Amino acid sequence: MSTGSGFYAGRRVTVTGGASFIGSHLATALLRAGAKVTIADNYSSGTTENLREIAADVEVLELDLRSPDDALRACAGAELVFHLAAAHGGRGYIDSHADACAENFLIDQHVFRSAVRSGVDRVAFASSACVYPAALQQPQTHRALREDLVGPPYDPDGMYGMAKLCGELVLRGIAEQHGVGAVSCRYFTAYGPRCGESHAIMAMIARAFLGADPFQVWGDGTQVRTWIYVEDVVRLTMLAAEHVSDGSAVNIATDEMYTVRDAAELVLRVTGHEATIETLPHMPTGPLFRTADLERSTTLLGAVPQVNLAEGVRRTAEWYFRSKERGTIARDLPALLVERG
Amino acid sequence: MSTGSGFYAGRRVTVTGGASFIGSHLATALLRAGAKVTIADNYSSGTTENLREIAADVEVLELDLRSPDDALRACAGAELVFHLAAAHGGRGYIDSHADACAENFLIDQHVFRSAVRSGVDRVAFASSACVYPAALQQPQTHRALREDLVGPPYDPDGMYGMAKLCGELVLRGIAEQHGVGAVSCRYFTAYGPRCGESHAIMAMIARAFLGADPFQVWGDGTQVRTWIYVEDVVRLTMLAAEHVSDGSAVNIATDEMYTVRDAAELVLRVTGHEATIETLPHMPTGPLFRTADLERSTTLLGAVPQVNLAEGVRRTAEWYFRSKERGTIARDLPALLVERG
Ligand SMILES: NC(=O)c1ccc[n+]([C@@H]2O[C@H](COP(=O)([O-])OP(=O)(O)OC[C@H]3O[C@@H](n4cnc5c(N)ncnc54)[C@H](O)[C@@H]3O)[C@@H](O)[C@H]2O)c1
Ligand SMILES: NC(=O)c1ccc[n+]([C@@H]2O[C@H](COP(=O)([O-])OP(=O)(O)OC[C@H]3O[C@@H](n4cnc5c(N)ncnc54)[C@H](O)[C@@H]3O)[C@@H](O)[C@H]2O)c1
Repeated sequence: MSTGSGFYAGRRVTVTGGASFIGSHLATALLRAGAKVTIADNYSSGTTENLREIAADVEVLELDLRSPDDALRACAGAELVFHLAAAHGGRGYIDSHADACAENFLIDQHVFRSAVRSGVDRVAFASSACVYPAALQQPQTHRALREDLVGPPYDPDGMYGMAKLCGELVLRGIAEQHGVGAVSCRYFTAYGPRCGESHAIMAMIARAFLGADPFQVWGDGTQVRTWIYVEDVVRLTMLAAEHVSDGSAVNIATDEMYTVRDAAELVLRVTGHEATIETLPHMPTGPLFRTADLERSTTLLGAVPQVNLAEGVRRTAEWYFRSKERGTIARDLPALLVERG
Repeated sequence: MSTGSGFYAGRRVTVTGGASFIGSHLATALLRAGAKVTIADNYSSGTTENLREIAADVEVLELDLRSPDDALRACAGAELVFHLAAAHGGRGYIDSHADACAENFLIDQHVFRSAVRSGVDRVAFASSACVYPAALQQPQTHRALREDLVGPPYDPDGMYGMAKLCGELVLRGIAEQHGVGAVSCRYFTAYGPRCGESHAIMAMIARAFLGADPFQVWGDGTQVRTWIYVEDVVRLTMLAAEHVSDGSAVNIATDEMYTVRDAAELVLRVTGHEATIETLPHMPTGPLFRTADLERSTTLLGAVPQVNLAEGVRRTAEWYFRSKERGTIARDLPALLVERG
């Protein structure tokens, strides 16, 4: 691990939800930048496996942020808090588990309040593209989602999006009132090593891994997305926490656009798998046209994503094929596709 | 106290925020209907004075619902929970105190979860007209606010309205998921004995009490409102908890409409005070045209408000003039007008 001389060198940093897909990559990158990293997680969707490579170098607190005392323990002594812990789920999960998604109201409040009480300098909140209005994500009416398009009237994506939205609003209010530096990072869909199969790109890689033919994709294949590789998510999040402190939001996304069908073809090409794509129009897809405006993040962070979808899929598939066991995936994929996390 | 033979006779009922203006009247009415009443309050805006008449007949738990353990204590053993506790404030207060208003996210979650864990049959939630979209409350575009007008896109009134909205959504989700009976009571502006001077009607009564001339009203006087007398609020809330259990919302309001200027003239007439009305266009007023649709509540509750504004103001002014001390009000009114509560 280098100790660096940059913004993060020697800083005491807490990553809530640090055992998650994104959180574990963030913790690794923070260590590389010289930070002293504490991870706070209850392993509800995060895993010790995600932390295997860095377990010796971080402090891990197994605790439950639904408890205010645990939240205080998570933030104690930290200069920066990256708040990624969240009850999360694929579609389907969210709709039938109101109280699980509503946990995020609790978790966010507890972490933000604890950060203030602990004298933390900066809070970076893992928000989501789910805070953007649904009406701007339709084929006929879509707009590249620009940060200021979130404002009354609000139309976030379900209870999960509503909780992220309220998290942002509360964080901004707390930042202004208490003079704590804060930023909300609106993640668009991320993928990469350790990401679960309930995310579309990962589901495709899993199907290629199993040699599935026909090759199923959810929806009619025309829905448009932008995906971002986890290494870029992490790098841009660290820049956001360094450069944005006024409680505002920045998109963490690429300006690539893919239809789901094109993404499926890319996955087939990269993995060398030949199969016929079969669309499943009746499966849930989420918004039909979601792309990001990058002007604000490019200006404020002075950086853009570096890994395009072809390269990101190549790296992710390489990891997936190396680390997964065919029999296990064949057995578990139907469940993994709809799992929480 | 009668013990009655109706729905509430012998029921164990918790009123969170029971030391408040509305909560204390509700507790009194529940006692009259034969319920066994527990009040849970932290006296942040509620007072022991509000409970003076019933102190011997209720159990009072002084506790803080921001704590999950305290919330569980409040709900333990209850068959019905009326959840009125809330961090509340006049305009001005709300905008500059993000974390106080955001407390409601915590309080609501804790109470709803505790109710489920405690096996409570019914939860009635004190929601607010603040959940309705601002765009429907303008002079040119107003509609009588009907319950189903709250839906995406959402445009609640500030952080306070956002928290009430999320409270409703979470309560409905929890009700469906756990089979708990639930109803959200959308209170339009209430007034009556024990109501604080930060509410417009009470501010007018206070000014009449002080013999103020000119007689100031906030805004240009043309904003339209519906006010409901606290006895009606309480009666309709009790009917709502009895008759609505599917997690939906009902308006608790009258169909009277008054401009603020007309209401001021009514207060002058009822109190026998003669003065010139002076409008203060630059003071905050909230929405300009807010009225309620009563079809759903009339159908479901089988009842409508019984006390019109003239009668309600008469009773309230009678109480105010009898129980307040002129010197104290003269000294404190400027602060009371903008106070929390
Ligand atoms: N993956 C994406 O594409 C994406 C997109 C938008 C936003 N996000 C946000 O980024 C963050 C990380 O997401 P992710 O996809 O890497 O995985 P995730 O959503 O599974 O991560 C959440 C982490 O929080 C932990 N957690 C949950 N409840 C907790 C509690 N009560 N106490 C302590 N820890 C708790 C989980 O164990 C997990 O490690 C989340 O906040 C998520 O909402 C992710
Ligand atoms: N008065 C109105 O016109 C009106 C209109 C719409 C909705 N409401 C709602 O009705 C309810 C009662 O309102 P009100 O005007 O009578 O007075 P209020 O808003 O002051 O009542 C809130 C009560 O909750 C208590 N409380 C606050 N935080 C608490 C905590 N952490 N733990 C325990 N108790 C706590 C306060 O002490 C107070 O007794 C509130 O939920 C309010 O939002 C009132």
